[in-house]
Amino acid sequence: MKENLQHKTETREFREQWIGFIHDTQDRICDRLEQLDGRTQFKTDNWERLQGKGGGGITRMISGGNVFEKGGVNSSIVYGSVTARMRKALHIDGATWFACGLSLVLHPANPFVPTVHANYRYFELYDREDYVCDRWFGGGTDLTPYYLDESDATHFHQIYKNACDGFDKRLYPLFKKNCDDYFVNAHRASERRGIGGIFFDRRQPDDEHGLDFWFRFCKGCAEAFFEAYIPIAKKQKNHPYGEQQRRWQEIRRGRYVEFNLIHDKGTLFGLKTNGRAESILMSLPPTARFDYDDKPLPGSDEDRLLQVCLHPREWV
Amino acid sequence: MKENLQHKTETREFREQWIGFIHDTQDRICDRLEQLDGRTQFKTDNWERLQGKGGGGITRMISGGNVFEKGGVNSSIVYGSVTARMRKALHIDGATWFACGLSLVLHPANPFVPTVHANYRYFELYDREDYVCDRWFGGGTDLTPYYLDESDATHFHQIYKNACDGFDKRLYPLFKKNCDDYFVNAHRASERRGIGGIFFDRRQPDDEHGLDFWFRFCKGCAEAFFEAYIPIAKKQKNHPYGEQQRRWQEIRRGRYVEFNLIHDKGTLFGLKTNGRAESILMSLPPTARFDYDDKPLPGSDEDRLLQVCLHPREWV
Repeated sequence: MKENLQHKTETREFREQWIGFIHDTQDRICDRLEQLDGRTQFKTDNWERLQGKGGGGITRMISGGNVFEKGGVNSSIVYGSVTARMRKALHIDGATWFACGLSLVLHPANPFVPTVHANYRYFELYDREDYVCDRWFGGGTDLTPYYLDESDATHFHQIYKNACDGFDKRLYPLFKKNCDDYFVNAHRASERRGIGGIFFDRRQPDDEHGLDFWFRFCKGCAEAFFEAYIPIAKKQKNHPYGEQQRRWQEIRRGRYVEFNLIHDKGTLFGLKTNGRAESILMSLPPTARFDYDDKPLPGSDEDRLLQVCLHPREWV
Repeated sequence: MKENLQHKTETREFREQWIGFIHDTQDRICDRLEQLDGRTQFKTDNWERLQGKGGGGITRMISGGNVFEKGGVNSSIVYGSVTARMRKALHIDGATWFACGLSLVLHPANPFVPTVHANYRYFELYDREDYVCDRWFGGGTDLTPYYLDESDATHFHQIYKNACDGFDKRLYPLFKKNCDDYFVNAHRASERRGIGGIFFDRRQPDDEHGLDFWFRFCKGCAEAFFEAYIPIAKKQKNHPYGEQQRRWQEIRRGRYVEFNLIHDKGTLFGLKTNGRAESILMSLPPTARFDYDDKPLPGSDEDRLLQVCLHPREWV
């Protein structure tokens, strides 16, 4: 037995608890979204990784809904050997790995209902003798509105600030900034994908914040989704709109596509390591528009949104 | 004076000839496309590279046309120092460089008119004393239909085969295969972007085929565009279509976006080295659709197109 290292068999119970949390959250979120949508239900695809690689996932998709034009709430439990590609991309040194996470993206039909993305994941890395040589948590939730409702933006950030503050008051400012720094279309003068939220990655249990802390933190943030997003969707879902608003929504959806396909590390890593393309690309909007050199009129509602994407604000 | 190496001042005349060819071809293609479109004209944006980097370009865009929903025919003349990023991405060893090229992408409104892409470029690399230490040509033209018209596919490939055969009969088979191997959505079971054409890169003048050979070859292929594409667009531009065909066109346009943003080296290199995003992204279709796990009915017209993307054919 190695000193200070736990064997894979010893962390099994924790992995099972995490998996339970992911599946439970997936089900509860889908139920709540179906209730809100009122028209359509999620379809379920259970898939397995190909080519003898371990694990699989549950892809739950909604489309053509009353509120949600397209959305996915996916879970996956995957494991395998550390490849040269992973070693390089993730800067890790180990023999085998395990990962389990939840990933959701909702693209509403109404341009006044923001798109939302959330992701919570746990990763374990093992040495050749199956001892845990590294482990970490990552995740976050961020909002991509098409029109700016300042009270909604404040509400969304306030809920995540509250969720973080319950654990450690240093976390919200840090994770809010991480989020602003990560979801950036760097090729467009650092235009952000949306108005942010929280984002964290590779949070390793340490003396200050152990395994249990991060587990409870992820649970708390995942739970905050209900209070952060549902009321906004509910409030805005019948907001009147016309062709102009729909066109702008499609332009911004184009930017969403650009970020996910050019910059998002998770998407690119998944696609380039033979991940399940359909599950990874569920994050793409149902439709998108790419007009040449589109710029909203200065001072317009469209421009107001663009300005907060270019210059992130402190919402709380 | 260095043996076997030409100084930058000695290749100036060639560069000017190449630039003349690029600008002349750009103008003539735009004129011909405007004539075909019959409704709208190209708009011109002259741009300069930012941050003191050398050169600029002429972006010519068409949108909302009778035939062309969106299209760009762009030229650029750019030069500068070799950066660490270029060194790594292009596997080059030099101090400064010069590049000039033409790049066009046309996205027609009618799903029976194929999208077409063409690109012809010349690159010179200099050592610290401004001697030319490397130079090459690259380019090609490829077709992305939404519905397969076998006689159009054969016509398109036949024109490029003829153009190549006039120079060297080994080139078409080689460049046709390069094209099939390059425009691939590797994350989708090696689905090609379309039915191909020709593609070549880094063709360096050597004893067999000198500078003049490759210049004439590029000219010949660029000229073939008129005969290869215009008759197809003319023949199909009034083909009747409905919602179903339009939807399928948008699904395929989604695949076009995926290729360009995930895999296309030119696009990614341009975006990640602060190229002019609007000019680079002119290649994206005006609209796109990303439906979860969309699969055409086996045996349908949509499936016939998909099958030739999955299994490239010899058209001539």
